Amino acid sequence: MTPIITAFERSPDRGKGLARDMRVRWALEEVGQAYAVRLVSFHAMKEPAHRALHPFGQIPTYEEDDLVLFESGAIVLHIAERHAGLLPDEANARARAIAWMFAALNTVEPPILELATAGLLEGDKPWTGQRLPLVRDRIRNRLGDLSARLGDADWLDAEFSAGDLMIVGVLLRLKASGLLDEYPNLAAYVARGEARPAFQRAFEAQLAVFTGTPPTG
Amino acid sequence: MTPIITAFERSPDRGKGLARDMRVRWALEEVGQAYAVRLVSFHAMKEPAHRALHPFGQIPTYEEDDLVLFESGAIVLHIAERHAGLLPDEANARARAIAWMFAALNTVEPPILELATAGLLEGDKPWTGQRLPLVRDRIRNRLGDLSARLGDADWLDAEFSAGDLMIVGVLLRLKASGLLDEYPNLAAYVARGEARPAFQRAFEAQLAVFTGTPPTG
Repeated sequence: MTPIITAFERSPDRGKGLARDMRVRWALEEVGQAYAVRLVSFHAMKEPAHRALHPFGQIPTYEEDDLVLFESGAIVLHIAERHAGLLPDEANARARAIAWMFAALNTVEPPILELATAGLLEGDKPWTGQRLPLVRDRIRNRLGDLSARLGDADWLDAEFSAGDLMIVGVLLRLKASGLLDEYPNLAAYVARGEARPAFQRAFEAQLAVFTGTPPTG
Repeated sequence: MTPIITAFERSPDRGKGLARDMRVRWALEEVGQAYAVRLVSFHAMKEPAHRALHPFGQIPTYEEDDLVLFESGAIVLHIAERHAGLLPDEANARARAIAWMFAALNTVEPPILELATAGLLEGDKPWTGQRLPLVRDRIRNRLGDLSARLGDADWLDAEFSAGDLMIVGVLLRLKASGLLDEYPNLAAYVARGEARPAFQRAFEAQLAVFTGTPPTG
């Protein structure tokens, strides 16, 4: 069967491609796997039918025959393991690409999530003005390390991989913050990711949900 | 060669087993793989020699023949893929176990990291007293969902897997907060993880670093 993913019926980013279905769409486009999309409202996400697919009531999910998966990292890894194009063939290079996937989600993204949370859930609190510079500095710590490792390479470990896909996917969330521009090699790295035809196709598909054009699924 | 992992020379948790080397030690013990440990000081972690192994200057790392890995999630997955005992054989069950690994690191751990950060890096700030209840509620959101999914099962998806190992490893960080006790089935789940002989061996080995007993490596 054609895999089915879920995405927000109304993405809070209004089609900027920052929701986590974008990472899965991008991976599917990179490997040339067609997919269908089921849109889910914020209300329906928390109902039992969707929670049976995703215990935390979020998107994306992935359904393929008898398999149901949640977590964008797990879905992208599943896709990468079953198709050529997102993981190197050589065992050690493959393990390193997967390490960058985990680094994206457990080392780079947490302080970026803190910044988003500070705006979304604590934007009206009296401390937020004073606290934001601390959170931004914690993001800079990660970006400085990442920038040093990347250097002037195109991708983090020779060829483009699912590791780059996840790191770029996470760094995209910093665009509005201006932080990425402090690290020109990271800004160029993200732009390289965005310039990939597969990214472009995925971006257009998620934007179409917001603009009302039927999804390409 | 015997794999070599790195761990803190002086763990900030004073041997409570909350540093990320514990997850890797536990996985190695579950599969019966001997390992050596190289201890790293906070100073040395940020030096070029260690950063060549870990771009973010953290622990743990994993060295085996020509392979160098960082990120506890990637290391545990690498171990689980090469030995029996941490991932089911059946393809769909294997993918779901990996999904729980990602859920541990990208969905459950981020608000727990926020709580730790609030204490460690913002403990002296005037807003922390008012802000902590908000952070604790964000953790409760995750714990409530996890508790509902677990129900009265022993493990998250039939047999114990690397997914349970990572979820338990993350939930252990909540012990001092008292939050775990609000969800009796999660507290019992964590206790089941801690009762595993492999966990016990791993815990003793990391504690020995702090108490001065030579590591068993």
